[in-house]
Amino acid sequence: VTAFRLGLLNPNTSVEDTDAMVALARAALPGDTEVHGLTAQAGHMAIEGEFEHVDAAVQVLALMRAHQDLDGYLIACFDDPGVHAARELTTAPVVGIGHAAYISASLVGRRFAVITTLRRGVAALEDGLLAHGLRERCAGVLALERGVREQSGDDAVQRIVDVGAHAIDELGADVLVLACGAMAAAAAAVSARLSVPVCDGVAFGALTAHALWLAGLSTSKRNAYRSPEGAAL
Amino acid sequence: VTAFRLGLLNPNTSVEDTDAMVALARAALPGDTEVHGLTAQAGHMAIEGEFEHVDAAVQVLALMRAHQDLDGYLIACFDDPGVHAARELTTAPVVGIGHAAYISASLVGRRFAVITTLRRGVAALEDGLLAHGLRERCAGVLALERGVREQSGDDAVQRIVDVGAHAIDELGADVLVLACGAMAAAAAAVSARLSVPVCDGVAFGALTAHALWLAGLSTSKRNAYRSPEGAAL
Amino acid sequence: VTAFRLGLLNPNTSVEDTDAMVALARAALPGDTEVHGLTAQAGHMAIEGEFEHVDAAVQVLALMRAHQDLDGYLIACFDDPGVHAARELTTAPVVGIGHAAYISASLVGRRFAVITTLRRGVAALEDGLLAHGLRERCAGVLALERGVREQSGDDAVQRIVDVGAHAIDELGADVLVLACGAMAAAAAAVSARLSVPVCDGVAFGALTAHALWLAGLSTSKRNAYRSPEGAAL
Amino acid sequence: VTAFRLGLLNPNTSVEDTDAMVALARAALPGDTEVHGLTAQAGHMAIEGEFEHVDAAVQVLALMRAHQDLDGYLIACFDDPGVHAARELTTAPVVGIGHAAYISASLVGRRFAVITTLRRGVAALEDGLLAHGLRERCAGVLALERGVREQSGDDAVQRIVDVGAHAIDELGADVLVLACGAMAAAAAAVSARLSVPVCDGVAFGALTAHALWLAGLSTSKRNAYRSPEGAAL
Amino acid sequence: VTAFRLGLLNPNTSVEDTDAMVALARAALPGDTEVHGLTAQAGHMAIEGEFEHVDAAVQVLALMRAHQDLDGYLIACFDDPGVHAARELTTAPVVGIGHAAYISASLVGRRFAVITTLRRGVAALEDGLLAHGLRERCAGVLALERGVREQSGDDAVQRIVDVGAHAIDELGADVLVLACGAMAAAAAAVSARLSVPVCDGVAFGALTAHALWLAGLSTSKRNAYRSPEGAAL
Amino acid sequence: VTAFRLGLLNPNTSVEDTDAMVALARAALPGDTEVHGLTAQAGHMAIEGEFEHVDAAVQVLALMRAHQDLDGYLIACFDDPGVHAARELTTAPVVGIGHAAYISASLVGRRFAVITTLRRGVAALEDGLLAHGLRERCAGVLALERGVREQSGDDAVQRIVDVGAHAIDELGADVLVLACGAMAAAAAAVSARLSVPVCDGVAFGALTAHALWLAGLSTSKRNAYRSPEGAAL
Repeated sequence: VTAFRLGLLNPNTSVEDTDAMVALARAALPGDTEVHGLTAQAGHMAIEGEFEHVDAAVQVLALMRAHQDLDGYLIACFDDPGVHAARELTTAPVVGIGHAAYISASLVGRRFAVITTLRRGVAALEDGLLAHGLRERCAGVLALERGVREQSGDDAVQRIVDVGAHAIDELGADVLVLACGAMAAAAAAVSARLSVPVCDGVAFGALTAHALWLAGLSTSKRNAYRSPEGAAL
Repeated sequence: VTAFRLGLLNPNTSVEDTDAMVALARAALPGDTEVHGLTAQAGHMAIEGEFEHVDAAVQVLALMRAHQDLDGYLIACFDDPGVHAARELTTAPVVGIGHAAYISASLVGRRFAVITTLRRGVAALEDGLLAHGLRERCAGVLALERGVREQSGDDAVQRIVDVGAHAIDELGADVLVLACGAMAAAAAAVSARLSVPVCDGVAFGALTAHALWLAGLSTSKRNAYRSPEGAAL
Repeated sequence: VTAFRLGLLNPNTSVEDTDAMVALARAALPGDTEVHGLTAQAGHMAIEGEFEHVDAAVQVLALMRAHQDLDGYLIACFDDPGVHAARELTTAPVVGIGHAAYISASLVGRRFAVITTLRRGVAALEDGLLAHGLRERCAGVLALERGVREQSGDDAVQRIVDVGAHAIDELGADVLVLACGAMAAAAAAVSARLSVPVCDGVAFGALTAHALWLAGLSTSKRNAYRSPEGAAL
Repeated sequence: VTAFRLGLLNPNTSVEDTDAMVALARAALPGDTEVHGLTAQAGHMAIEGEFEHVDAAVQVLALMRAHQDLDGYLIACFDDPGVHAARELTTAPVVGIGHAAYISASLVGRRFAVITTLRRGVAALEDGLLAHGLRERCAGVLALERGVREQSGDDAVQRIVDVGAHAIDELGADVLVLACGAMAAAAAAVSARLSVPVCDGVAFGALTAHALWLAGLSTSKRNAYRSPEGAAL
Repeated sequence: VTAFRLGLLNPNTSVEDTDAMVALARAALPGDTEVHGLTAQAGHMAIEGEFEHVDAAVQVLALMRAHQDLDGYLIACFDDPGVHAARELTTAPVVGIGHAAYISASLVGRRFAVITTLRRGVAALEDGLLAHGLRERCAGVLALERGVREQSGDDAVQRIVDVGAHAIDELGADVLVLACGAMAAAAAAVSARLSVPVCDGVAFGALTAHALWLAGLSTSKRNAYRSPEGAAL
Repeated sequence: VTAFRLGLLNPNTSVEDTDAMVALARAALPGDTEVHGLTAQAGHMAIEGEFEHVDAAVQVLALMRAHQDLDGYLIACFDDPGVHAARELTTAPVVGIGHAAYISASLVGRRFAVITTLRRGVAALEDGLLAHGLRERCAGVLALERGVREQSGDDAVQRIVDVGAHAIDELGADVLVLACGAMAAAAAAVSARLSVPVCDGVAFGALTAHALWLAGLSTSKRNAYRSPEGAAL
């Protein structure tokens, strides 16, 4: 019996971020699975806007093509860069942490709020929710007005707690979604402080890729995700 | 360490159906988990329309209240009867096989077709897709015009294959969703014949409930799914 | 000439509630019609969440089956429990007071606000509006944070007036919808205080069932509302 | 006690059409009500496109301003010309036969098909359904490819029956909506032939205006339908 | 070579408004084009609600029919009165300033706010956005609570700046849309003060009609915009 | 006075394609403007799926950064790769030919059909229409089942004419949109054969970028399109 081998694709260049997300995935997955943390060889230290998003998609595809033999892939950046293209390149299941976070939030609550770093990213998140058909499930997308590299420390937790409490008490959210890999470390503390589920998509995304593999569901090669000519993984 | 114990709630009265679905869930879940197959003590042999759906929801809640100590619940009927009410009764994750089937289909393809038994059920399925925000992802809801109790045998597989081929070739579906627990047995054969993923929601739904549990995500008790007074599980 | 006989189906167990709603219906209907107030024989004193909603749907169907010969039915609980199933059981028109309230609000104003009892019910009401296609017509769903059994007295009217004034002045509502049968008694006073139409669905719903009957429109038996086998009323 | 007096506003210039629609309304309304049939003094013999629709709206407002003392108004043309403007001019309820037909169809079935005269009118009807939030309830808008003035005789009924049978058997409609006042005469025959409810909006619209009046619901004068300065009826 | 001749159709009776809008169009169009400013011969001095909108549509069609030989038409009133009917009457391109303003806003920003005169007009603007499919692009429709004839002077600019700053800082708008021809004069000042693009639709709408003409795109005469019988321009 | 200088960014590597599109743009723009045709230095000869789309976005940004001083940019590939990121990099207006084609189609008709090369691209186009809010304006997305490099010759025109005639006669389209730069050469012939406007977005897109520039509308730098740190053009 072969064990499940997951490629966790971090499209930014921070090995530290990769390691932190690998730790979350490993802690959630069963012991007989492997998590291969793969870090972008070029690009940006943080993905904050659409400009970095374009490069992030390229890095995702490069990492996939360099590691073709894995059983599932997790795109470990909240805006799921290149997810449709990635699915054209493989029959293995491909999951993005943003989509995974939204799926989990929609299963443990009826309304969720999304907490992001900077206001400039709000419209892109709203458009993503619309594309997933989840706009009406979202009670609000709220910005902390702190960048990706300012998401550590007690102070960072407190800021998320303040914004989250507003989302729950005033906007009717049942669940919080943290729209940035760098916030994932704060999830447990925020959840404990506010008594709501807090979804970051890393652990649940890894489990979802595993679940698709266990259920025998591979990426369809008919119609939309057909392999591009000459580019199959 | 406690193993995960799943309550698979079959709201129809057929123990045979329960057993078949338990087998699918058990085959997909890791060996150290438990699947408790629970069959409705009253109600209908098959859930075909809204009339039976009302009773099915009552059966789901009765089964949950009689088995309060489980770690997760799978509502094993495609229209997810009573799923919102069930979430009011517990902090454990609650997943419906219909929602699970749609989630898996949206991860391995870009467009799916839904195959159901009778035409009278098409509008309810369409309305469910709308509520999940997935109406635009669906290439069509197609009826076999065969009842729940006529879904076994080679003949049944052939009919699904014919309808599925139309969905793929003419309507652009990448994936098929089988909207009836009784069709789940045909999934593997249909997938092999048409070379597309076929989603029934039983195995993937069980894995999803497990994944939520592993990720530490329990049903929110703030706002929408607050426990009803005097009725907590 | 036979007079129109309406079954007003109250799915909670309060005869007092039934009597109050029958009085509203009778006051609005012409003198030659009959209103049969029917109270649930089991279930809950108040329907506040999804848990009670499941039982309410069962009560609606039980009352209908026990009174099969009526000319029209009004489901007298705002979330219209079991309305699709009820239509499978009869050719007589079936109207829910929630749907009726929204229809009337959409005819006498361009934007309405919905006022409900508890915040936990807001998401379910929003989802109901989405299902009716009226989400964009709604300026807001606002909770009084008072339970169904705290909706009487001058104090109750004042709280609705305060929330309603906010909806009109800040959110742009032209009309108010009271999303709870127990608030119906306050409708006239609130309307007089705020100079806007206030819709509760009881009187207008009874009139709508009558209007369908007068126009010769019975529930369709082709496709979606086909009678379930062996269960026709 | 004053009886209800309805203004039935026919924005085309055909007195014959007005008389036919008045007869339908009178047959449905209780005996103690009055129906004032009002025919446009200028404009077009038939409203087939957007060009005629513009003039129709003007005629509706002219008829209302010339008959200010009535208790309710029915705009007797399927695209409800001028309905929002008409509501600015009065506190009496104003109902359009198109909106009324859709409301009745949504109460007696789960999916309806709309049958219209010419293909050029299909897009405007689809846009109207979208504005009412009922696009997803509609199984299709189908054109007979016969003009407004070719809608009489057995032949006309047969053509509607043919198109309607297709809508029911192939598209899943439970109910038919006839999107043209001139087809209203065929409604009963079509309904009998196909065993489905057929909604034209004339009788049900008259009853709806009456129902709003009986329920004490007048057009809101706060926000959207505030009276235009110097133009109040 | 014939130069492009634009008909700028002002459906209110203010020649001053026509002149101001002609000046804006002329300043933006190339020197070899002609702008024919056409003012309604009857109707209202200002179009503030649905009542005036009905008459405005009639005026638009009357002006078009009196000037049939032009190469393009601009309907110079923000709610684009009669735009669909106008397209039935001609093969020349017809653009409304409201639609044009929204198009330009959607090209230079990701979220826009709409600023209008009176609260009573907000719902109609929201419904228009819905019809254009742009509801989700709009961060809010905000009323100044000043009438069309109170939109001049420094004071007027300051009020727009205050409301606009709120839209940008609190609602996340990137761009402002001024929903009233009379505000167009303030656009440049508001844009300078707030450092955002401000779209009024007059200049860009004139350029859009010209662009369609240059690209050889005339109004389709197949299906929806077929000429009405006996009414072709 | 400086003339307008447009950067036409072709993200595929075919100089022939660039030249053909530059010729279309130049023919439509006034004589005193400049069109700078810029061809991707790396990437793919044709953009057919999501895989190539990722690289195309990178090429668009690279071309923009290498030509920072232009007055407007046209992304000359139908799926508008990198359009949001491109807007973060400049204050000049940025237009995509896909968006431009849809805008023009929505101005000269009420329903359009989209004609594309391969079926695998249909879902991505549908999702793009949804993101633009134009899903309901589209009568259908139809595939020719011929690749980008098989779009020349009489035969190619005939295939588009056949599919287009079906869209007009059976699906109710008023206008055709050609969703592939390589089809643009066929537009005039198809339009002449079918008597409908045919929109390809190249000429109209160039004119739209020019129109925004003439109207003084630059890309907003508040909120969503704020410049990425250290990456401004």
